[in-house]
Amino acid sequence: MQQKGVLLVISGPSGTGKGMICQKLREDMPIRYSISATTRKPREGEVHGREYFFYEKQAFETLIAQDGLLEWAKVYDNYYGTPREFVENVLNSGEDCLLEIDTQGAMNVKQAMNDAVLVFIAPPSLTELRRRILGRGTESIEEIDKRMSCAADEISFINRYDYVIINDEVDKAAQKLLSILQAERCRVSRNDGFILTE
Amino acid sequence: MQQKGVLLVISGPSGTGKGMICQKLREDMPIRYSISATTRKPREGEVHGREYFFYEKQAFETLIAQDGLLEWAKVYDNYYGTPREFVENVLNSGEDCLLEIDTQGAMNVKQAMNDAVLVFIAPPSLTELRRRILGRGTESIEEIDKRMSCAADEISFINRYDYVIINDEVDKAAQKLLSILQAERCRVSRNDGFILTE
Repeated sequence: MQQKGVLLVISGPSGTGKGMICQKLREDMPIRYSISATTRKPREGEVHGREYFFYEKQAFETLIAQDGLLEWAKVYDNYYGTPREFVENVLNSGEDCLLEIDTQGAMNVKQAMNDAVLVFIAPPSLTELRRRILGRGTESIEEIDKRMSCAADEISFINRYDYVIINDEVDKAAQKLLSILQAERCRVSRNDGFILTE
Repeated sequence: MQQKGVLLVISGPSGTGKGMICQKLREDMPIRYSISATTRKPREGEVHGREYFFYEKQAFETLIAQDGLLEWAKVYDNYYGTPREFVENVLNSGEDCLLEIDTQGAMNVKQAMNDAVLVFIAPPSLTELRRRILGRGTESIEEIDKRMSCAADEISFINRYDYVIINDEVDKAAQKLLSILQAERCRVSRNDGFILTE
């Protein structure tokens, strides 16, 4: 019998640097990325089961009906979702699984899988977030205002997360995420049946 | 405004090595030891407020009556307890506080201070625990049997702890304890009011 892996769900406003933190975590610790399912067409070089699981619309709707997704959303004309079976197979093999997702998706995952660990990556302040997005120099003022308003919406969900990491330094933030993962593996609730049988 | 420290409560059967783990933790991370109150007389070299807070019996009973102790017990003719004020002052100053205590004491502390973090240090197995106690060569067989029976009692409380660390290697176990402390500092419930005010 093997200890189940931890499902680590990461959210945070665009521009907070959560991608870089997750990348650093993966350098320190083997952890599998969750692979999303989608109905959008594969782009050149994309492989089914690597970038995405590609489904026809009807097959995706069957997955929804059969409770085969931990969460899903329709974005314009395409469905996106997190396949339950993939995540469960990873966890049951004893590996941890990382899922980067927006706050709405995270809430649905928590409902579907109660022992998921929800981590919110927050910028040091909204002023700093605006500065970072401006620093990229790729977005118009309207786009930036839209992102800032989205950020405020996402931040209003913080209290429904288990942990918050304020990303003032990427290395420190990644270290905190690693600590959270290691601590969660020590949770008594995850160690039932592994302790002291003789 | 400063983030409150974490009260880390450590229990585990005698012979599990929790003392060494706590010592290693303190090398990596500044953390204050809780100082117990007692009615036993100071031994030579012991200083009030360093090894213990020494009280007369009546003063100790007044502390009990005023809810001034997070937990207390009477051992033979002497009282021992954990002064609430000392612990609260440490936590309010933003420092973390470490309390090594038996399972009964830990249950009482959790009741008195709901955000205390309870960590159980377990031996890899009862066989291994017996081997370790035998290895010390300081206890009689009767004494060892008594310790093993105590250990079984303590282990029956594991499910009321937050975390369990199996001490198969001291360095790894200390690393896990450090991760738990760092993760707990990231708990959303401990970061209320520190996030994103502007």
